[in-house]
Amino acid sequence: MKVKDVGEWRIIDRIWRTLIRDPEEIMGFNDDVVSKRLRKGWVLVAHTDALTEIADILPGMTPHSIGFKSVVMNVSDFASKGVKPLGMLFALGMPGDVDVSFVDEIARGWRDAAKKYGLYVWGGDITEARELVLCGTIIGLAREGDLVARKGAREGDLVACIGEFGLTSIAYFMLLEGLRAPNERVERRAKEAVYYPKAYLKEGLKLARLKVVTSSMDCSDGLAWTLHTLCYLNNVGMVIKNIPIPSEVFEYAKEHGLDPYELALYGGEEYALVFTLKRDSLNRIPKSLLREIHIIGEVTLDKRVRLEIEGVKREVEARGWEHFKSRK
Amino acid sequence: MKVKDVGEWRIIDRIWRTLIRDPEEIMGFNDDVVSKRLRKGWVLVAHTDALTEIADILPGMTPHSIGFKSVVMNVSDFASKGVKPLGMLFALGMPGDVDVSFVDEIARGWRDAAKKYGLYVWGGDITEARELVLCGTIIGLAREGDLVARKGAREGDLVACIGEFGLTSIAYFMLLEGLRAPNERVERRAKEAVYYPKAYLKEGLKLARLKVVTSSMDCSDGLAWTLHTLCYLNNVGMVIKNIPIPSEVFEYAKEHGLDPYELALYGGEEYALVFTLKRDSLNRIPKSLLREIHIIGEVTLDKRVRLEIEGVKREVEARGWEHFKSRK
Repeated sequence: MKVKDVGEWRIIDRIWRTLIRDPEEIMGFNDDVVSKRLRKGWVLVAHTDALTEIADILPGMTPHSIGFKSVVMNVSDFASKGVKPLGMLFALGMPGDVDVSFVDEIARGWRDAAKKYGLYVWGGDITEARELVLCGTIIGLAREGDLVARKGAREGDLVACIGEFGLTSIAYFMLLEGLRAPNERVERRAKEAVYYPKAYLKEGLKLARLKVVTSSMDCSDGLAWTLHTLCYLNNVGMVIKNIPIPSEVFEYAKEHGLDPYELALYGGEEYALVFTLKRDSLNRIPKSLLREIHIIGEVTLDKRVRLEIEGVKREVEARGWEHFKSRK
Repeated sequence: MKVKDVGEWRIIDRIWRTLIRDPEEIMGFNDDVVSKRLRKGWVLVAHTDALTEIADILPGMTPHSIGFKSVVMNVSDFASKGVKPLGMLFALGMPGDVDVSFVDEIARGWRDAAKKYGLYVWGGDITEARELVLCGTIIGLAREGDLVARKGAREGDLVACIGEFGLTSIAYFMLLEGLRAPNERVERRAKEAVYYPKAYLKEGLKLARLKVVTSSMDCSDGLAWTLHTLCYLNNVGMVIKNIPIPSEVFEYAKEHGLDPYELALYGGEEYALVFTLKRDSLNRIPKSLLREIHIIGEVTLDKRVRLEIEGVKREVEARGWEHFKSRK
């Protein structure tokens, strides 16, 4: 039996069952970060995310954008938990015939993204590898009570997000399948979404401090997968009545006869925040933050994830980006 | 200009100069770990080390030993700093056609090594890659005053080590160049040294608590390189009068007409502790620990590293394992 036959998630589950669990680790393998209890209510929070040439590098990415994105993909997990990162380590693997200037640009990407998100790249390791591999580890400290887990959503909670969906799907169609954008603006926005993605760190930190979020998850494997995972872990369902989709996604979908909701639901590497909120908590959120929040649906008791938009009702499928099984 | 033309250390230096330094990081790029000041004298300590198929995996390594070694190589850096690790994260990259049982065995290797060194593997990331890549990150907390840096050696200090040298060089000759061992015992000890290396964590922790070590460094790039690095960073030299070399190294050297001191000096991946001690501190070290310590020389003012053993005097060359430049 090969890894590609069982896929990423079953492999993770097998590894998890083999390891000895730390009784002071409070998040478990099913969340976006690990978190170790220290003293007096403090927890150490850490997360690691690797980017490899074969799985993650899209045509047209510059080394600067590769470095930048390798920071953002780690910051995004901390944003979803409401944890401020302190710094990162990187292990960088590459073949010996890579240009030195290429590495310089990766380092500038690290520097610029680190500066943007208020953290430091402290150091790391360089090693020879058959392809480019950037393995980032992000570390921070938090108060245990401030950490927002994937578990916690209850029936009646609102489903919400910060950020939009669909642009990365367009970028994959454009860059990997050659389906051209109808105009320069659509092309630019789609490329920006995958070359220089944005993590909603400030927003995630503010939300966590307000104690209004009941569950939250990093959205890097796609919106549909994120919603299904939150439902599965919380033993609930969701009705989704609204998805923030930029006009460029509708334009592109129209051009190629694609379904914009498909593009929004089954993309990936969109580092939007997806979370659930107590229904009566909206009035506790400052207006400036509330303006960024899209209420997209509500938590239900039946365990389905349904889309009900513009009179169209359909099931949201439980699929998303899975290493070894998905193919971009 | 390619990475292989300039080598690992100049690449690290270029990256370091590109990044913005954290004013609260106290070790700098030149040490074995990074360390971030927290509050009340506590520091966060972290280190990352990647193992790739092309650079690190020797013929005959089992997946269990690969997993085990990927923990040990990280623990070793903490041992040299006197820091107790709390846990590790792993990013595991591999091609989809790897057997699931192979991954299970890597996880068992992680579990067994973690148990041996009293830490936990908390979690990590799985991704598709062209070759097997294990990127481990180890994290701990320490009192700032307990951390042993590479800097601190002074003229007159003793040079010491815990652990022996030369077996990994034999293993490379055996496994990579086909120079056979003269007997089964030599073969077994050499293979054990590279398949299941040992980190001297307990010893490193005890030494740090005694406050007798003036400088210390992980020895994974070879003894000669370690001595030279400590000298360079401390602006001193060393005279080495004794190197602990197992009898098997002498047997193997004799069989193949090799120089046992060459084997001991220019190996690598020997996770021995190499450190300097205040000359008057030996009486403060408990007998049980003292028995493990080999005094191998002393720190001098001239900036050379010399070997003076059995009437033979020679310079120790400043070479060791460097990614992209060295070839096993």
